[in-house]
Amino acid sequence: MTFLAELERTAWAVEQRLGELLAAGETVPPGGVELGEAMRYAALGGGKRLRPFLLIQSARLFGMEEASALDAACALECVHCYSLVHDDLPAMDDDALRRGRPTLHVAFDEATAILSGDALLTLAFEILSAPETHDDPAIRAELVLMLARAAGWHGMALGQALDLSAAHHDFSPEDIARMQTLKTGALFRFSCEAGAALGRADEPARAALKAYAGAFGQAFQLADDLLDAHGNAEALGKAVAKDAGRGKATLVAALGVDGAKAHLAGLVAEAEHALKPFGDKGEMLVDAARFVAERRA
Amino acid sequence: MTFLAELERTAWAVEQRLGELLAAGETVPPGGVELGEAMRYAALGGGKRLRPFLLIQSARLFGMEEASALDAACALECVHCYSLVHDDLPAMDDDALRRGRPTLHVAFDEATAILSGDALLTLAFEILSAPETHDDPAIRAELVLMLARAAGWHGMALGQALDLSAAHHDFSPEDIARMQTLKTGALFRFSCEAGAALGRADEPARAALKAYAGAFGQAFQLADDLLDAHGNAEALGKAVAKDAGRGKATLVAALGVDGAKAHLAGLVAEAEHALKPFGDKGEMLVDAARFVAERRA
Repeated sequence: MTFLAELERTAWAVEQRLGELLAAGETVPPGGVELGEAMRYAALGGGKRLRPFLLIQSARLFGMEEASALDAACALECVHCYSLVHDDLPAMDDDALRRGRPTLHVAFDEATAILSGDALLTLAFEILSAPETHDDPAIRAELVLMLARAAGWHGMALGQALDLSAAHHDFSPEDIARMQTLKTGALFRFSCEAGAALGRADEPARAALKAYAGAFGQAFQLADDLLDAHGNAEALGKAVAKDAGRGKATLVAALGVDGAKAHLAGLVAEAEHALKPFGDKGEMLVDAARFVAERRA
Repeated sequence: MTFLAELERTAWAVEQRLGELLAAGETVPPGGVELGEAMRYAALGGGKRLRPFLLIQSARLFGMEEASALDAACALECVHCYSLVHDDLPAMDDDALRRGRPTLHVAFDEATAILSGDALLTLAFEILSAPETHDDPAIRAELVLMLARAAGWHGMALGQALDLSAAHHDFSPEDIARMQTLKTGALFRFSCEAGAALGRADEPARAALKAYAGAFGQAFQLADDLLDAHGNAEALGKAVAKDAGRGKATLVAALGVDGAKAHLAGLVAEAEHALKPFGDKGEMLVDAARFVAERRA
């Protein structure tokens, strides 16, 4: 199966399973409908599901079936979706458009956006710790620990705090890279680490995947910054050139467009090199790195 | 040791351990200081630490030392503190004062308040899933699952959503009780359930503690509503009569002050009755129920 077909198929499987996990319960008290609806609005009906794809493909390297990695992949996507909802809030990035639709606080209201983000984050840990996710409680506890570290105050949340403060500070290219490693990279790293944990991978395999995920995350962010600098709103489904306008730190601003493109090609090569130990089995992940570097939307 | 002395001693132990868990890391990137500082502002230096007390005392019923329950207690307190930070936000309850100090979004800013709440919630799961919390990964995974359910979209988060929508709906006393069971009761129930899980309690003991926690949670909320109706800002350290003024649903409004006081006495008796199977060992928890019913602040 080609990469794009596989990516689409995985996105469909994730959408189905997320829909089940977010299905309304039997008894919905008054007011309860809206919270669940808001969570479904945030988590369903969009997105390439790149993080779940990486998780599932990483688990496959160690012989895991997609079905056995799907719940962990959905938990990860819940964290990603929560982060988008909170980042879009007026007090944060103040975005009104996401994936071509009004952002959650616009479609509902701010309180519902804050609460449904909180609830999606919490749901991620509920999913990861549930017996359905893995038979072995030691692996479930490990997944929870890894995701909490990736998303928390030394990971993604810190990255977002740094990103907000970048508007008031003169960030060096190194500072920007560090901020992006935390803000965007931490969840990509978790994607691959979680796949390895599910498949009980040994240390060398985990290290190889970690190197891949590091390069992948940087490539993703750099491509995103390049799109932001040159893209158009129609293709991206969100407001563009906004980061630059707000004085937000990007590597494109620091390196220039040509420098950024050269750096991007280097990162893809780095990702490919990291996967050498897996031979042909790593092909889907190599394609994923190329895909994010070349994407136009 | 008397109840009040024990409550104070536990609060001190929780404060110390939370301080360690929230200690700044070795390398703090620019902007990172503020997020950690905000989390410490939210979690340290105040509060009776009632939930950790219940958790530790519940674990003691089954022979667990305080030291072996302290990390789980701190994780629970992180969730409680996150909920206060987010509930206080302008888009939610819009409170400027908490425990006699400016609320987090006033002392820092809204973005930092949203992010540090997110990070405290995430930290709770990091703590619960860490090997230091319990030797047995099955118990760690169980604690994560229970806390996520208690705090999430069918628990505390739903309760807060219902509370917000209560302003626009005509809630019956039953609706109010249900909302409070979710918003306040869920974490109290977790307190006792987590203590039982740490101590590997059998089903009858868990059921007894669950009944106790249910009555305790209702008593706590009712006493809070009575204080809100009659208290003063100095004693409570927060704005009073605000819930009623905003048309928020309370049982005091539905039952009247005398009816509410009679109901409160019944709840304390219920809590005491539920602990009968534990004999003298349950005394601290009985005292805790009396304490929350009689508190003036």
